[in-house]
Amino acid sequence: MTYCVAMTLEAGMLFASDSRTNAGVDQVSRFSKMRSFVRDGDRVIVMLSSGNLSITQNAINTLEQRARAGDNALSLWNATSMFDVARLLGDALREVKTRDGPYLMQNNIDSSANFLVGGQIRGEPPRLFNVYSEGNFIEATAETCYFQSGETKYGKPVIDRMVTRHSTLVDAIKCTMVSFDSTMRSNISVGLPIDLLLYHTDALSIGMQRRIEETDPYYQMVHGQWGEGLRRVFAQLPGPDWA
Amino acid sequence: MTYCVAMTLEAGMLFASDSRTNAGVDQVSRFSKMRSFVRDGDRVIVMLSSGNLSITQNAINTLEQRARAGDNALSLWNATSMFDVARLLGDALREVKTRDGPYLMQNNIDSSANFLVGGQIRGEPPRLFNVYSEGNFIEATAETCYFQSGETKYGKPVIDRMVTRHSTLVDAIKCTMVSFDSTMRSNISVGLPIDLLLYHTDALSIGMQRRIEETDPYYQMVHGQWGEGLRRVFAQLPGPDWA
Repeated sequence: MTYCVAMTLEAGMLFASDSRTNAGVDQVSRFSKMRSFVRDGDRVIVMLSSGNLSITQNAINTLEQRARAGDNALSLWNATSMFDVARLLGDALREVKTRDGPYLMQNNIDSSANFLVGGQIRGEPPRLFNVYSEGNFIEATAETCYFQSGETKYGKPVIDRMVTRHSTLVDAIKCTMVSFDSTMRSNISVGLPIDLLLYHTDALSIGMQRRIEETDPYYQMVHGQWGEGLRRVFAQLPGPDWA
Repeated sequence: MTYCVAMTLEAGMLFASDSRTNAGVDQVSRFSKMRSFVRDGDRVIVMLSSGNLSITQNAINTLEQRARAGDNALSLWNATSMFDVARLLGDALREVKTRDGPYLMQNNIDSSANFLVGGQIRGEPPRLFNVYSEGNFIEATAETCYFQSGETKYGKPVIDRMVTRHSTLVDAIKCTMVSFDSTMRSNISVGLPIDLLLYHTDALSIGMQRRIEETDPYYQMVHGQWGEGLRRVFAQLPGPDWA
């Protein structure tokens, strides 16, 4: 499984993904699910992937190889909008699924995969898209300023409660740590390290990128204080007078 | 959708279920998902159902009709163990699915359904079972003292954090209210009222039964105080020094 979150706020964007992949519980490994394409002053594009790893890797490799070819075809490096980037990614996903999907299906292997892709290209505001397994996609708006993918449910309530478009990036980080903590507590197929990337609006370069390992003091602090805080709030809730 | 929780603690048992059923978002109605079979001093049996409503209702009606027949066949009223009750329920579920399932499948209608069934029969300690859609079942143990069914994920983390076998029934009620609140916040196909039933170990009669409506002051208090408490704990979490 996987857990990815991407947020687009007034202050900037946050991208986070776990690093655990598994094919059954007896085959677990570490793969980063975050890829960024950056040309300082011109564009920052970040992709978070979930689903079948061979499908998502191949889709990105396809895009990257074409972008490197440097011909006049639309690519990650010459697209003038994030909308075009989302289309390119959806097309690449469809291409790989068309090629590999039928072979996977012969062995009942799920070829579904999806991407959160966001960033900013000079001349546009920051934009965030959720590219579904079928290659179609939706864009985040002021009302819904974040997307998740993979194991989304355990970590959703805290984001719904704490994050709006006006939140600071520091609050977004705090909330993301709690959201990952809740998810990893309930689903062992989501695991550390977490790849975290911050982007400040109009910076056109990466604000901060960090890999959060088990031993990370900030993650451990959030894990401990959040759990203690919840227990305190719970203890303070009165019981019903009818019980 | 549905959300049901049943817990078996040293102090007793708690059963809770929501009351919303839907066939698509444009056909929503209210049906209680809790059924109890009680003979004071002899047995308390409580069933919570989720999944296809025609399947779960028919399974219970089948059981009830047979129990009323009063012949010597094994029934809800003469079973000497909760294990036998779980088997009866699993058999009834299989019977209804065998009869109706193929017709539902012709229209791609999901016939899956499951039950949480627990209680106490004189001569045995309280026992709790999770009867799967295939009619097989598992029993709760000291390590895993609760089961959920339906929309389980949003409301699971708080139970995992707050409830153990040694918890009081008052804490179990508090936790159940928070668990339903989190679930209903994230999934509109789960809705009030909540049917709640408490059973005190060895009482062999129902301890308390209550229907919690939107206007219930205790539910509203939990909803408000839990949300405020979480925001307070979140606000007190320090930000990372590396951001």
